[in-house]
Amino acid sequence: MDALTICVVGASGHLARTKIFPALFALYCQGYLPDNFRVVGYARSSLSDEEFRKRVEEKLTCRYTPDAQCEDRMREFLDRCRYCRGQYDSAEDFRSMTAACSESNEGNLGNLVVYLAVPPHVFTMAARAMGEAGITSRDADDGWTRVVIEKPFGHDRASSDQLTRDMAEVLSEEQVYRIDHYLGKEVIQNLLVLRFANLIFEPIWNRHYIHNVEITWKEDLTIEGRGGYFDESGIIRDVMQNHLLQILALIGMEPPPHLEADHVQNAKVNALVSVPPPTIDDVVTGQYTGTTEGKREIPGYREDPSVPGDSVTPTYAAVALRIDNTRWDGVPFLVRAGKGLDGRMTEIRIRFREIPGAMFDQRDEAPEPNELVIRVQPDAAIYFNITNKVPGVGMKLEQRMLDLQYKLAFDEKIPDAYEDLLLDVLRGDKSLFIRSDELAAAWDIFTPLLRELDGAGTAPHAYEFGARGPAEADALAARHGVTWS
Amino acid sequence: MDALTICVVGASGHLARTKIFPALFALYCQGYLPDNFRVVGYARSSLSDEEFRKRVEEKLTCRYTPDAQCEDRMREFLDRCRYCRGQYDSAEDFRSMTAACSESNEGNLGNLVVYLAVPPHVFTMAARAMGEAGITSRDADDGWTRVVIEKPFGHDRASSDQLTRDMAEVLSEEQVYRIDHYLGKEVIQNLLVLRFANLIFEPIWNRHYIHNVEITWKEDLTIEGRGGYFDESGIIRDVMQNHLLQILALIGMEPPPHLEADHVQNAKVNALVSVPPPTIDDVVTGQYTGTTEGKREIPGYREDPSVPGDSVTPTYAAVALRIDNTRWDGVPFLVRAGKGLDGRMTEIRIRFREIPGAMFDQRDEAPEPNELVIRVQPDAAIYFNITNKVPGVGMKLEQRMLDLQYKLAFDEKIPDAYEDLLLDVLRGDKSLFIRSDELAAAWDIFTPLLRELDGAGTAPHAYEFGARGPAEADALAARHGVTWS
Repeated sequence: MDALTICVVGASGHLARTKIFPALFALYCQGYLPDNFRVVGYARSSLSDEEFRKRVEEKLTCRYTPDAQCEDRMREFLDRCRYCRGQYDSAEDFRSMTAACSESNEGNLGNLVVYLAVPPHVFTMAARAMGEAGITSRDADDGWTRVVIEKPFGHDRASSDQLTRDMAEVLSEEQVYRIDHYLGKEVIQNLLVLRFANLIFEPIWNRHYIHNVEITWKEDLTIEGRGGYFDESGIIRDVMQNHLLQILALIGMEPPPHLEADHVQNAKVNALVSVPPPTIDDVVTGQYTGTTEGKREIPGYREDPSVPGDSVTPTYAAVALRIDNTRWDGVPFLVRAGKGLDGRMTEIRIRFREIPGAMFDQRDEAPEPNELVIRVQPDAAIYFNITNKVPGVGMKLEQRMLDLQYKLAFDEKIPDAYEDLLLDVLRGDKSLFIRSDELAAAWDIFTPLLRELDGAGTAPHAYEFGARGPAEADALAARHGVTWS
Repeated sequence: MDALTICVVGASGHLARTKIFPALFALYCQGYLPDNFRVVGYARSSLSDEEFRKRVEEKLTCRYTPDAQCEDRMREFLDRCRYCRGQYDSAEDFRSMTAACSESNEGNLGNLVVYLAVPPHVFTMAARAMGEAGITSRDADDGWTRVVIEKPFGHDRASSDQLTRDMAEVLSEEQVYRIDHYLGKEVIQNLLVLRFANLIFEPIWNRHYIHNVEITWKEDLTIEGRGGYFDESGIIRDVMQNHLLQILALIGMEPPPHLEADHVQNAKVNALVSVPPPTIDDVVTGQYTGTTEGKREIPGYREDPSVPGDSVTPTYAAVALRIDNTRWDGVPFLVRAGKGLDGRMTEIRIRFREIPGAMFDQRDEAPEPNELVIRVQPDAAIYFNITNKVPGVGMKLEQRMLDLQYKLAFDEKIPDAYEDLLLDVLRGDKSLFIRSDELAAAWDIFTPLLRELDGAGTAPHAYEFGARGPAEADALAARHGVTWS
């Protein structure tokens, strides 16, 4: 196999240390990296190779290796790790980095993955510096170069387009891997398999049988000093425009001809462009306030030192979306996301219509509508809520789950999303990455609403930390005939 | 509530002692019997009330009563039990029985259930004697009279009709409760709820999505001396014509307007009359032979002392049936039943078609077709076999169960089938009983085949005790594109 260099730009950051290096180690333990791979940490601070390795080692775990061999494997992996100090905008520094790598491999750099684990304003300057250094336009014979970036990709359609154009100056679309790490999660990857490898779903997956779809993302934490980035973006940009729209697209898309990347992305784009941008009437925003838990004072969002005291940034949003096509006309997709709520959970609920006809009219209780629930986290699971006769004399109906809990159903370890995504980068499989037109379509959905919210400086509804969110969100759902689960 | 007398004719038999009295006690413990009920055991042998109570007590269990109260409840129940010696064909004896009951209740017999827990040749003579005694044609003001009988109901269409006619001389169809105790089983009772109280099943419940239906009944026992009745009937009469056809009708029937008895029975009759009688080519019969398990000699069917040495009675049968209507045209219903097999189990498997289209063509493995499995016994359960992405990098597909195990899903105790059925007799709810036209339709399906098998004296295929049944059954299934599960 060809030589491979994985260069992590921003090597001392949180993402690199907690996600990227552990994922690379996991791939190494499972034999997915070529014999002659090396990992280069690239950042501005001054570190020796040994200091760098120590930092990397701190977060490595041996999930795929027997304990006895763990230390050896870590040592082998860390031996392949080098550190390279450099400025993010310096062609010269990038050139030194690749030169050093080539040198240690008989003058041959081989294939190169550059993971830009840096804030988004660095993406363009780093890409330009790499372009200037000749890294992004090497001869195909010398190996490919792929660049990985992760959200935020702009803060609206225009700025996102600008980023796409800037990157395109030095990188072809084929070279750019836009990560939405939700797409790497096991349950999300299973969505297409569930929908299309099982005959039983497609016939009922439409407006004739589905009453509404609910997509919920919630977190029970405060912002705790991380308000710098968040306060400028808010929950819609942080979670909805990317993760939750991706989920909506996977639930809503038409069957692609094959499961290959372009087919899947085409199908997702088709779903997204059929979503009319929500208006201000389709949304409820909220911001959590402080509370007291026992003796502990929990500060409200605005009381966090990293947040301006008069911030109107929403930490919660509930939005009613539609997909205006023949499959989904009239089916509300109710999407909500919030921080400081009553739990940590991401789940999809597909609620079916009521039983038609009068068969159960003479019973005391009407059967509850079926629900298919896909829980992404925690405790990945898929279950149908099904009405049964409760055992016992007489005819009492109640719902129970037909369920599949990942922990019980699979012996396999559930990999971290980044393991999957990084391996796909190495394999050149882009099914789980965001294509530029997909990104544009997702921004088109939320840009008008965000402009209106930002422009009006609309104050979000207050909700207490640890609550279910603002009460107004219930009214929004009710207007679509839905009670939030 | 009105006074109630439950008279069990054949009170010293196996059915009465192991099923009927314990079920009555269970109903009593749950408060389903009226205050002034009494139980009368009626049989030919001479027993005192106390001797009778002792026999009844042996099989009572306290499933619905806290242990501390158990003895009291049993005592109360047994106090209501009386014994009455009588001949099955004696109007006078029946008259004495009812007179004794009336006497102990201020001259008022009240409502009367007579459970004929006797061999079928006694049904008619007992009914006639009761008729002559005026028991079956009392004034409505004096209370109703209901008679419960259990299979076999004849051994072909003609003899079954004869029994129906004979009973009709003294009892209206409304008064006759024909038990198929399979209909009292929880999972079987849940079939209609599953199908019709859940929106997700009806759209896929037809020839467009279902490839075949498999209904399996198997037992891992030898005949052990009980060959007297069985050898004259064989497995088709013993299990298929009743229990398994009932299951087929519940799976195959169209939605009834309501869940009331007549509607359900009409729908079942419609399904049954759409089943063309199978020919000799649609069936494989078998008879188990002896084997050695370790040091234990297990005798073959013909070697059993209660079976003639040259018996050609089938202990196994596999039959390919069809329901020739718009819903099921072309869908094989493969039904098999056998004694002396590799396990004890009753289950229904609904196998869906292959995934259409080419979406998964480039994968190594095609997704397995979905299956909905309804396990009646042991360990009642319902599950869907669903294809999932196996957690881990890469795209590996495997089936796992979306499942509902009764033991885990319900805290409720699972009642014995007879508890449900007896309570329905008291309530006059006939949904779980066999109407005479339903019985006739079921016999119409198997009578031509049975006549042919009996007439030809066809030797069944031999299969070793503890095996899967005769190999020829695999070829039968294969002709319909099916591999038995």
